[in-house]
Amino acid sequence: MPETRADDLPPVDLPDTVRAALAAPMVDHHCHGVRRDDLSRSEFETLMTEAGGPAPPGTTHFDTPAGLAVRRWCAPLLDLEPHASPAVYLSRRAELGAAEVNRRLLRKAGVAAFLVDTGLDRPELLTAAEMGRVGGAAADEIVRLEQVEQEVAEAGLSAVGYVRALRDELAARAARAVGLKSVAAYRCGLALDAARPSRGTMIASAGRRLSDPKGRLTDPVLIRHLLWTAVDVARERSLPLQFHCGFGDTDLDLHRCDPALLTGFIRAVAPAGMPVVLLHCYPYHRQAAYLAAVFPHVYADVGLALTYTAAGSAAVLGEMVELVPFHKLMFSSDCYGLAELCLLGALYHRRGLARVLAARLAEDEWSTHDAARIAHMIGSGNARRVYRL
Amino acid sequence: MPETRADDLPPVDLPDTVRAALAAPMVDHHCHGVRRDDLSRSEFETLMTEAGGPAPPGTTHFDTPAGLAVRRWCAPLLDLEPHASPAVYLSRRAELGAAEVNRRLLRKAGVAAFLVDTGLDRPELLTAAEMGRVGGAAADEIVRLEQVEQEVAEAGLSAVGYVRALRDELAARAARAVGLKSVAAYRCGLALDAARPSRGTMIASAGRRLSDPKGRLTDPVLIRHLLWTAVDVARERSLPLQFHCGFGDTDLDLHRCDPALLTGFIRAVAPAGMPVVLLHCYPYHRQAAYLAAVFPHVYADVGLALTYTAAGSAAVLGEMVELVPFHKLMFSSDCYGLAELCLLGALYHRRGLARVLAARLAEDEWSTHDAARIAHMIGSGNARRVYRL
Amino acid sequence: MPETRADDLPPVDLPDTVRAALAAPMVDHHCHGVRRDDLSRSEFETLMTEAGGPAPPGTTHFDTPAGLAVRRWCAPLLDLEPHASPAVYLSRRAELGAAEVNRRLLRKAGVAAFLVDTGLDRPELLTAAEMGRVGGAAADEIVRLEQVEQEVAEAGLSAVGYVRALRDELAARAARAVGLKSVAAYRCGLALDAARPSRGTMIASAGRRLSDPKGRLTDPVLIRHLLWTAVDVARERSLPLQFHCGFGDTDLDLHRCDPALLTGFIRAVAPAGMPVVLLHCYPYHRQAAYLAAVFPHVYADVGLALTYTAAGSAAVLGEMVELVPFHKLMFSSDCYGLAELCLLGALYHRRGLARVLAARLAEDEWSTHDAARIAHMIGSGNARRVYRL
Repeated sequence: MPETRADDLPPVDLPDTVRAALAAPMVDHHCHGVRRDDLSRSEFETLMTEAGGPAPPGTTHFDTPAGLAVRRWCAPLLDLEPHASPAVYLSRRAELGAAEVNRRLLRKAGVAAFLVDTGLDRPELLTAAEMGRVGGAAADEIVRLEQVEQEVAEAGLSAVGYVRALRDELAARAARAVGLKSVAAYRCGLALDAARPSRGTMIASAGRRLSDPKGRLTDPVLIRHLLWTAVDVARERSLPLQFHCGFGDTDLDLHRCDPALLTGFIRAVAPAGMPVVLLHCYPYHRQAAYLAAVFPHVYADVGLALTYTAAGSAAVLGEMVELVPFHKLMFSSDCYGLAELCLLGALYHRRGLARVLAARLAEDEWSTHDAARIAHMIGSGNARRVYRL
Repeated sequence: MPETRADDLPPVDLPDTVRAALAAPMVDHHCHGVRRDDLSRSEFETLMTEAGGPAPPGTTHFDTPAGLAVRRWCAPLLDLEPHASPAVYLSRRAELGAAEVNRRLLRKAGVAAFLVDTGLDRPELLTAAEMGRVGGAAADEIVRLEQVEQEVAEAGLSAVGYVRALRDELAARAARAVGLKSVAAYRCGLALDAARPSRGTMIASAGRRLSDPKGRLTDPVLIRHLLWTAVDVARERSLPLQFHCGFGDTDLDLHRCDPALLTGFIRAVAPAGMPVVLLHCYPYHRQAAYLAAVFPHVYADVGLALTYTAAGSAAVLGEMVELVPFHKLMFSSDCYGLAELCLLGALYHRRGLARVLAARLAEDEWSTHDAARIAHMIGSGNARRVYRL
Repeated sequence: MPETRADDLPPVDLPDTVRAALAAPMVDHHCHGVRRDDLSRSEFETLMTEAGGPAPPGTTHFDTPAGLAVRRWCAPLLDLEPHASPAVYLSRRAELGAAEVNRRLLRKAGVAAFLVDTGLDRPELLTAAEMGRVGGAAADEIVRLEQVEQEVAEAGLSAVGYVRALRDELAARAARAVGLKSVAAYRCGLALDAARPSRGTMIASAGRRLSDPKGRLTDPVLIRHLLWTAVDVARERSLPLQFHCGFGDTDLDLHRCDPALLTGFIRAVAPAGMPVVLLHCYPYHRQAAYLAAVFPHVYADVGLALTYTAAGSAAVLGEMVELVPFHKLMFSSDCYGLAELCLLGALYHRRGLARVLAARLAEDEWSTHDAARIAHMIGSGNARRVYRL
């Protein structure tokens, strides 16, 4: 039985110091909790993609790059042969139970710290602390702005009270967290007017918002207000502000999630000094690399794009590494629900970066010392500096 | 003399079952008729590109990726050495005559069925039935919405009569076809308002349309009406609705043809249940792969992008295969006018996919069984299921 | 000590004729002057990126693809080991002095002619003539439209006088130049209304412009007027009109610099007959290749994208070469300030193209004769034809 670990590297020629830097524990600077409960095939398949529902009749989400990757790389960790059939895989997964599967996969991911977006806090998801405990890692919290706003909106306040409570609640949550995150991409897209809204406009929008507090916040004015409130909170402690960009589920319009659309906002918040972190970004990862190259406060990752492009992910990482400064790129798995997604995210990051570094060395472009140093910066060094871990 | 066939595979290491799956006859799910008449050099060059006219003085369209590919891969099928000069190639082509050239090239393409967009029905183009006969394949029709609309507009009806006739004519044509196709990308771009237009607005637009019935339909309201009429017709028989996306000729504005712009429409027609097929999509093929990954009713191809990127096409196919579910990708040549374009489309599909599959196997990512199964799905299985062939 | 030259080719298998074509002197059809004075580390780092300022605390712009490339490829030309540390590199650079460094690097770039955009004419930059003299090459001037406009705006004229002077001054400057260039991408983006503005609108805009003559021109109406004036001037002598597209510094909004946004303007100026040249274009270089493929008067390069993607640049060039006609692609370094950027631009052009050509030959796609011919066309032939050198 071959043993699989997320630090399994492809059979490329790499010096030991570079291999060691790639294999070292990483900071997963953006992920979600995985499910603590056992899953039906339908639940598993749905969590395995961003489709949010079943595959068409006669087909299966296992016939995707990520589906094949689960069978290839996760099956051996459940004591199966690589490429086990979906039925065999899921049967063995049920036999072992979610707790054991999570323990095996999260530990093999080789993560030193999970920074967990707790914005989808459902009881069936592991908490940040549990992710750390199960994965043998440290754990910290990333506060999702829109979830805080939802709670405040539902608290039955006046518009003025809502504004005050939003600021207070964000500040309180931020005090216990290492970063903030926005899913504005899902709500109104990233082509935001960059300016802080005037108080009058904002209060009027808050009034409308409070007439439907259970609804999702989609008003661009209030989203801008939420972001600027986050900037006020974040600047005091230099907390990074993460943005979902690019690829996601059917709720978003992909072309409205190009991180280049954030340029105005990025320019406007530059004086505040806190880092802006662009997450995932596929297929606009080159745009993100450009922004990270020219704006000193912008950082980026390719996140879940690596998991979902799986066997093709080295090319995606290669495109990101074309232009991004090496002190600006970070690792994240963006796993949600399935521990498989954490294992695969870490595995394809290491495998893809191994291929890039091997090519740079084979082409006589970089020194071994630089290659090892860059692997370390991307895997954990940059995140430790940016999030002050 | 080396023999060329569209199932010529590159010298990569592939198991026999995978080679067999790649070499098997494919469904060309979107193409046009080729010219039955002999062509001058100027006509040939014009048909070889999307430029729609001659190359600048002192240059030739043969100095393009597709031009070099014609000389490399088609010359041997006309009994010439590979890389024959343009003059020698065209002289030999004339000597053999269009009928013989078409027969040789279409047969060597290894196509089991041609689904022919008959929207450009000029007498010099082979009909769908002729494409099948000459190519030794089955043939079916794809109805182009805008061509039906043009005929109805020119029939001299009232606005109300036009609306009724449009619906009746589309239904009649659809009854003999396996799919519908829209070139809205060329007419108003894909950033369509998703909603079905109100009857009042639509009738008013129809009135304006009928005042210039010979003109091209470009009014976004009527194009939306045409699309929704097609949805009504297609849903009854679950007929796929194809959309031209991305790369085309000088009539279109490329950035208005990003398939991501169709997201609202895709969401709106999801309840109707019929497949939406995104054609070509280059350079937005990653956007198409994303849409196919998250929307169960969306399918995609890279079509003529493979022919035109030719020696570079494996990279394009590789990017499409990064994310697309394997039950969602199909093959098309989109050949128009020249049988060479059909041969090259099929050849580069097989060669590019051979490289991708060989890489997946060499990198120990997929099983041989899965690689063969995926080649078969993309080559013909998906199209047979989607078009109910 | 290994010797580095910009015609150092990677260890790929290439026939001698192809190697010779790659190594031959090239036309750098778009560059700027390099600094004549010695530079502090801070000045050097700032000129090495498009960030326009220092890297974040604890980091350095040397930790970028271009930074590693300077240490790898330029250090040996300054008699250092490859991968010399930044401190060692800069110390040796100071020791040799700017004049000697410029002489060494520009000569090794293997350039036959520099076409110099003189729009940033600061005394510390070498002039066009000096670039030629130091680099052992011919030199010609490219006139930057916006710089001419700025001078005219500051001349204290009436609106009508401004319009007349703009035309006269552009004509006078063009008479001594080989091309014109616009940075409209930086000023209002490329999504321009294609039409020539009416005289009334334009005069009114000119009036407003002249109330703040020291400010930068950003009014889209006047920019369109400037472009159409350039068209009038350029058409008489068939002078190419260059456009900055894509990747640049923090002043631009990347998504407004997609060359596809220029499609309307490109269509509108087609009757004028002069070449339109799309510069850099990253990450929209495939869009540029498409425009060059379908519009006979459109040309393109990847320019500074090669320098900045450095060790990853072969992939970028590969994507451009997917679709671009080989009589449409040109070489430029777009160097500015640092002679290192000229050396690296030329070096990565040759190395990247060497890899592409080697792959085409290894895959039995192109003949050796065609490969050599294409290397020559891209390196200098196309530019000599287009700029009438």
